Amino acid sequence: MKYSIGVDIGGTNTDIGLVSSEGKCIGRKNLPTDQYDDAAVYIADIWMKINELMHEYGVETIEGIGIAAPVGNYYTGCIENATNLKFKGIVNLKALFTKHTDIPVVVSNDANAAAYGELVYGGARGMKNFVMFTLGTGVGSGIVVDGKLVHGKTGAAGELGHVLLYPDGRPCGCGRKGCLETYASATGIKTTARELLDQHPEYQGVLSQVPRNKLTSKGIGDAANAGDPLALKVMEMTGYWLGIAMANAVAFNGPEAVFLMGGPVKAGKVLLDPARKSFEEHLCFIYKGSVEVRVSELPNNDAAILGAAALVEMKEA
Amino acid sequence: MKYSIGVDIGGTNTDIGLVSSEGKCIGRKNLPTDQYDDAAVYIADIWMKINELMHEYGVETIEGIGIAAPVGNYYTGCIENATNLKFKGIVNLKALFTKHTDIPVVVSNDANAAAYGELVYGGARGMKNFVMFTLGTGVGSGIVVDGKLVHGKTGAAGELGHVLLYPDGRPCGCGRKGCLETYASATGIKTTARELLDQHPEYQGVLSQVPRNKLTSKGIGDAANAGDPLALKVMEMTGYWLGIAMANAVAFNGPEAVFLMGGPVKAGKVLLDPARKSFEEHLCFIYKGSVEVRVSELPNNDAAILGAAALVEMKEA
Repeated sequence: MKYSIGVDIGGTNTDIGLVSSEGKCIGRKNLPTDQYDDAAVYIADIWMKINELMHEYGVETIEGIGIAAPVGNYYTGCIENATNLKFKGIVNLKALFTKHTDIPVVVSNDANAAAYGELVYGGARGMKNFVMFTLGTGVGSGIVVDGKLVHGKTGAAGELGHVLLYPDGRPCGCGRKGCLETYASATGIKTTARELLDQHPEYQGVLSQVPRNKLTSKGIGDAANAGDPLALKVMEMTGYWLGIAMANAVAFNGPEAVFLMGGPVKAGKVLLDPARKSFEEHLCFIYKGSVEVRVSELPNNDAAILGAAALVEMKEA
Repeated sequence: MKYSIGVDIGGTNTDIGLVSSEGKCIGRKNLPTDQYDDAAVYIADIWMKINELMHEYGVETIEGIGIAAPVGNYYTGCIENATNLKFKGIVNLKALFTKHTDIPVVVSNDANAAAYGELVYGGARGMKNFVMFTLGTGVGSGIVVDGKLVHGKTGAAGELGHVLLYPDGRPCGCGRKGCLETYASATGIKTTARELLDQHPEYQGVLSQVPRNKLTSKGIGDAANAGDPLALKVMEMTGYWLGIAMANAVAFNGPEAVFLMGGPVKAGKVLLDPARKSFEEHLCFIYKGSVEVRVSELPNNDAAILGAAALVEMKEA
């Protein structure tokens, strides 16, 4: 058995996992990202946790360290101007690790890591062409062509959350209007719910009891699953938009499947049924019946760590 | 000097060119595609023309035969259910050629050939990641990732003419609504002109003298270049839409450049200036300033043949 380390850097927490070559996270540690001002100290502590993991599980060698970070760049090994991390400017994770070890370090953003995790350990095993959409606060994506992640000129390829679904549509945090993520993210789901609540003052269901600023994507999904008509409508609209975006993505790389991952996807059929319906409706006829819409097969709790660890497989690419 | 053959199959004409490795079409022949009912006879005649070309120009060996056809499939070497050709069903070009020669034959669709032509002989030489949009009756596209054309699962990748620019927008020949090609093709340009003419009965300019069914994309482009305000507005709107589509394409493969080719592009600045403006406006900030919008550098008359001949370079891919 071979082993890799997956490091998932989030704004609050950093999860560090020891992953076997069969795709199991056999041990994990974490660190409070937001407690570190100094990246060198932060990396030294991650390296210490890696050593603790290896010692605890009797693992003597690891193949590499894969790091998924908000704006992690595959080419440079850096986090670049992350808005939700205390480390400002450009932090060279790869260079910082070389002070401790010569084990290969591979960095990428979290959506790319999710796609690669699916390819190496999940439902995309053996696939050559697919697209992964990760739904969370925003929408991320990772695109695989001929078995390889698409990185693009600068490492910033695969940002389908910022494809304009409706030009001049909802305002997006990126400064433009109509980006997919304003419609299909957890944030978009809340926006849709608020819009529907405004349009239907007669509605007296469970969502009307929640203060507008306390609405959550999970709460709306739960309400939909309990049969609430407004929540079901929110999920139907979200699925509709997501279906269009997935159909448009297909026209790029003509994939075998489109995968979905993330919090809103856990709502299940109430989102997935309308998403698949809209996908088939909006798919160009040349692709009809040839592309599946699938949910990530990585275990929820370990998905991020598995994705990060999978990046190690790219080290020789 | 090495030589290849480029065969450009159109509904009416088939152009066959002898192309040198420096990217010059040194000789050409043509055949009337629409005069052939029998694909075997058609291919035999193409092979005869190839031999005539080689004989006339004293070329003894060729590296391969590249064929660009409306729905040419790279994987199968077939034309599949072409709507504008007399050959119905699936025609295996590659198999038909093997009756005459064992020279490698590479087949793809015309937009992919255009992209590959640009990569091998044109302005994309040395690039690893770019997108080519071909504007004609429809809109085609070819996408290059890491120096290779994206073919997808079935060979049908890169159909950005059928990305939904405005979901539920203009009806498209593909049966859906809002496809890019209903806005940014020569056909789309004519639609836009007709819409503006309907909206502006007070307009007395040159386009008002043309019967609606005689409007051409070239005529509209010429009128715009002569300063006609309605024609300029048509070009401005077309450029605006094209700019959005190009910006959206960038989010896929994070390219070095987006190339434009085809009849409408010959209108020049009246289309390109608004297209570039809209592109920069709609580009996600992470790509700002890093992607050029360029016009194909292949010579107009030989572009299709050069694109087809360039496909030969894929034979070992």
